[in-house]
Amino acid sequence: MKTVSALQTARYAYKPKLPAVLGGKVENLTLSFGKKTQAVSDTEELKKLFENTYGKPLAQVQKGKNANALKKIKAGVILSGGQAPGGHNVICGLYDAIKKGNVDSVLLGFLGGPSGLLENKFIKFTDKIIDEYRNTGGFDIIGSGRTKIETDEQYAAAAKNAKANKLDALVIIGGDDSNTNAALLAEYFIQNKIPTQVIGVPKTIDGDLKNALIETSFGFDTACKTFSELIGNIGRDANSAKKYWHFIKLMGRSASHIALECALQTQPNICLISEEIAANKTTLRGIVEGICTVITKRAANGENFGIVLIPEGLVEFIPEMKVLIAELNDTMALKQHEFAKLKNFDEKKAWLKTNLSQTSFEAFDSLPESIADQFLADRDPHGNVQVSRIDTEKLLALSVAKRLAEKKKAGTYKGKFSSYTHFFGYEGRCAFPSNFDADYCYALGYNAFILIAGGVTGYLSSVRNLVKSAKEWTAGGVPLTMMMNMEQRHGSKKPVIKKALVELNGKPFKKFALQRDKWAIDTSYTFPGAIQYFGPSEVCDCPTKTLLLERK
Amino acid sequence: MKTVSALQTARYAYKPKLPAVLGGKVENLTLSFGKKTQAVSDTEELKKLFENTYGKPLAQVQKGKNANALKKIKAGVILSGGQAPGGHNVICGLYDAIKKGNVDSVLLGFLGGPSGLLENKFIKFTDKIIDEYRNTGGFDIIGSGRTKIETDEQYAAAAKNAKANKLDALVIIGGDDSNTNAALLAEYFIQNKIPTQVIGVPKTIDGDLKNALIETSFGFDTACKTFSELIGNIGRDANSAKKYWHFIKLMGRSASHIALECALQTQPNICLISEEIAANKTTLRGIVEGICTVITKRAANGENFGIVLIPEGLVEFIPEMKVLIAELNDTMALKQHEFAKLKNFDEKKAWLKTNLSQTSFEAFDSLPESIADQFLADRDPHGNVQVSRIDTEKLLALSVAKRLAEKKKAGTYKGKFSSYTHFFGYEGRCAFPSNFDADYCYALGYNAFILIAGGVTGYLSSVRNLVKSAKEWTAGGVPLTMMMNMEQRHGSKKPVIKKALVELNGKPFKKFALQRDKWAIDTSYTFPGAIQYFGPSEVCDCPTKTLLLERK
Repeated sequence: MKTVSALQTARYAYKPKLPAVLGGKVENLTLSFGKKTQAVSDTEELKKLFENTYGKPLAQVQKGKNANALKKIKAGVILSGGQAPGGHNVICGLYDAIKKGNVDSVLLGFLGGPSGLLENKFIKFTDKIIDEYRNTGGFDIIGSGRTKIETDEQYAAAAKNAKANKLDALVIIGGDDSNTNAALLAEYFIQNKIPTQVIGVPKTIDGDLKNALIETSFGFDTACKTFSELIGNIGRDANSAKKYWHFIKLMGRSASHIALECALQTQPNICLISEEIAANKTTLRGIVEGICTVITKRAANGENFGIVLIPEGLVEFIPEMKVLIAELNDTMALKQHEFAKLKNFDEKKAWLKTNLSQTSFEAFDSLPESIADQFLADRDPHGNVQVSRIDTEKLLALSVAKRLAEKKKAGTYKGKFSSYTHFFGYEGRCAFPSNFDADYCYALGYNAFILIAGGVTGYLSSVRNLVKSAKEWTAGGVPLTMMMNMEQRHGSKKPVIKKALVELNGKPFKKFALQRDKWAIDTSYTFPGAIQYFGPSEVCDCPTKTLLLERK
Repeated sequence: MKTVSALQTARYAYKPKLPAVLGGKVENLTLSFGKKTQAVSDTEELKKLFENTYGKPLAQVQKGKNANALKKIKAGVILSGGQAPGGHNVICGLYDAIKKGNVDSVLLGFLGGPSGLLENKFIKFTDKIIDEYRNTGGFDIIGSGRTKIETDEQYAAAAKNAKANKLDALVIIGGDDSNTNAALLAEYFIQNKIPTQVIGVPKTIDGDLKNALIETSFGFDTACKTFSELIGNIGRDANSAKKYWHFIKLMGRSASHIALECALQTQPNICLISEEIAANKTTLRGIVEGICTVITKRAANGENFGIVLIPEGLVEFIPEMKVLIAELNDTMALKQHEFAKLKNFDEKKAWLKTNLSQTSFEAFDSLPESIADQFLADRDPHGNVQVSRIDTEKLLALSVAKRLAEKKKAGTYKGKFSSYTHFFGYEGRCAFPSNFDADYCYALGYNAFILIAGGVTGYLSSVRNLVKSAKEWTAGGVPLTMMMNMEQRHGSKKPVIKKALVELNGKPFKKFALQRDKWAIDTSYTFPGAIQYFGPSEVCDCPTKTLLLERK
């Protein structure tokens, strides 16, 4: 017997709010199509690669007869990549819609991510299984994985199992990479006469899978709210004890959306935005100096404490670090046997002196040893530096401490500096989805079935108008190729969905930039507290500030 | 203009549930006294030290006329030591009761902990200030601090300012140390004819200030629930991704109550209990071996992931580490000048080889270098090893990785091991208090005024019967000397409140011990989710499992 928490039991009873446009009988919902679409860029190359699926029109769900929805079908679903709150509700919405169409229809869940399809490992969903996961966090219903379908053998295996299982449709719940894969698979299936439609669902807490037609990826809302709960709590602690600077790194592989949203929610003293640092070509030294300036000013006011938010991907956006990482990847791949023989940090450093450019060696040499070591250890399967394993929060705390000691000696800083570092990521990826994510995900999954019944493939399930109440949301499908361009990956040009970075002329960043000087010096923390599921609507149902600023 | 979150605004409207026994007009509440009390031990010594306050009777609040409650008074309040959720509500309850007695009465808040009293820095509370902090977390209303009132000069300063401000009473909100101080101050004030009553309030997230008459300290409930939210989220992530072991250290300076409560709430694979490790004299090697056994068994089931909970104070309970720390403290204090000259880790290690006992040097030498270094750096103001700055979670993760590599070589382990470490403390100390802590704290503060009006000093505000609904709670006062014994501190015997460690024959530990073997191998995680303030009562108002097991 599983032990279920009181909250989980209560959440089972929650009925996600379905948009009015998806209400009623599924056979009374149909798709209307707009005009043909274009890719972001590289249209000619993409047209060639996606012979059958390129340039399809936008689809919109509307009332209208569609007998197709009543057919008995067999569909499969895959959870791909990092966890995001609400994944279970996508599956629940999909399952409910499929069963509403025809109670004999079947939904398979492939286990452990895309590899489940390749290895044909799956479960058949039942009411009992689904009911155990309604409105819960995590991807544990079937597990997730990061296998990419890339090689010919993998495509063939996917096709074989789609055929063997007589899949009418495959729903891939994933981020930009996984949806790129979905697009390629959709095209491959048509080219190979596999009658399996492929539908994507936009997932990622990072918030970087969005564009004019995808207002936000699911999970971003809950993850940011969970991180903001913790940042707010730490801010309150800092302002109570008045003795620590907290350096808080936030998950989000490339883009700084999470850090920005959390800053808007909690008003920290400092929030670094990678995209701005790259645009201004700010060096590590410059970043450290900037932080020290704020610390010095606050110290002059007697406030020897503060909060610094740091996006996980930062180091790759600092110009000299980006070059250093690239050089390290190249050099160490080229001379890995030589490198492997080096016994300790000093030997490695001496070796790098002759194998890196002078600028990169200086950048390396400027790092505290404990951090420099992380640039050399723990390489990923491709032999690359694992940026997510670099303790950027410690790098900054250590560098700031060193610089402040210099300033103290020079008499330009008179405060006390003591710091703690934190990294939040795993704390929020599997939280119980907020009401917003619970509703949004259920609608995305439900809508995925309407797209299947509408006969399309290579489309992303799209639910929009999200700053309005759930009843007013709209639903439809966006051709995946519309979001693509060609990018250099591992030495060759590949079709990929363009990642949405933080726009420095976008409203969320501008709002932040307008207030941050005040936040830096004054103590202006706000305390969002824990996500609430049952209270007043303004506490429970408000979307992210990013979404409100972008869409309202 | 301060920005206030939606939750904070909503929480302002929350009315803490006052126990029926504290209801009605304050002038209709009086104290009845039981029989005289005895200290935990060392009664003769304590009798001498607490000439005027030793052995007082237990007090209980009951209905009855008390005109004293209507007198205009002036009281002060101090927040002492680490933050705990609910501190603001203690002050709100105290303020409301004082004003209910006489609207002209005044409550002062001393700033930054006990040093506020010594330096006579305070604010006068007003409705406006109080209303801004109702049901909020943190101690930021007046700040906190760790200054202890120990020297003659400090006692004299406290007396001087109590007198200068004409304080009828002083309420000290703190843990065992701060309440020991409160007892000493109460006695000192009588001896020096200062007419200021001293009342303590039991605060600490650590949960180690409890006994037959103090069922729990405030803040423990909220902090454990916040940590459990995060542990549950990480558990769900681990079970979704199925590739990481998470080593999670939990705040709680000495006792393992927090780790135990979080284990009962989340059912992790492993939870170390310091008190058990000390009782069994388990070595670090033994602990690592135990963890590796669980990892090996789970790997054999294909589950290369898990959750390990670690109490912050662990290293001091591991026999050889306790000795090592004691030797390091002695040696480095004695020969600090010699030690200060050593240039790097290798020199320090060589020096320690001749200055530590062989056993302690071996214990030191067995530590990963990055951790061993922490034993030598960052000493506290007394020159002692700062145990809270030792990354025990990393120590265990590194040691386990090393041991598993050996086992793999020997063919006795075939899994994959990859780990993440976390430390949760600052994330939970300032959370918005749970309904339980909000109610409990408000009642503790309100009751503190009833004790003042009842004319007692050297008492701890006590609200009991906590597993019942708030209406049924009882209220009274416990003489602080009753909780004391004599202990060796910095070379001399001092009167102190006895810390409550986890009892290995207590119900919470027994319940845990009964289930942990199953939790170790099966994946039995439960997911408590975020603290809820507005939902169904079973989600919002349930006290900790520890309290339920101990008192129901």
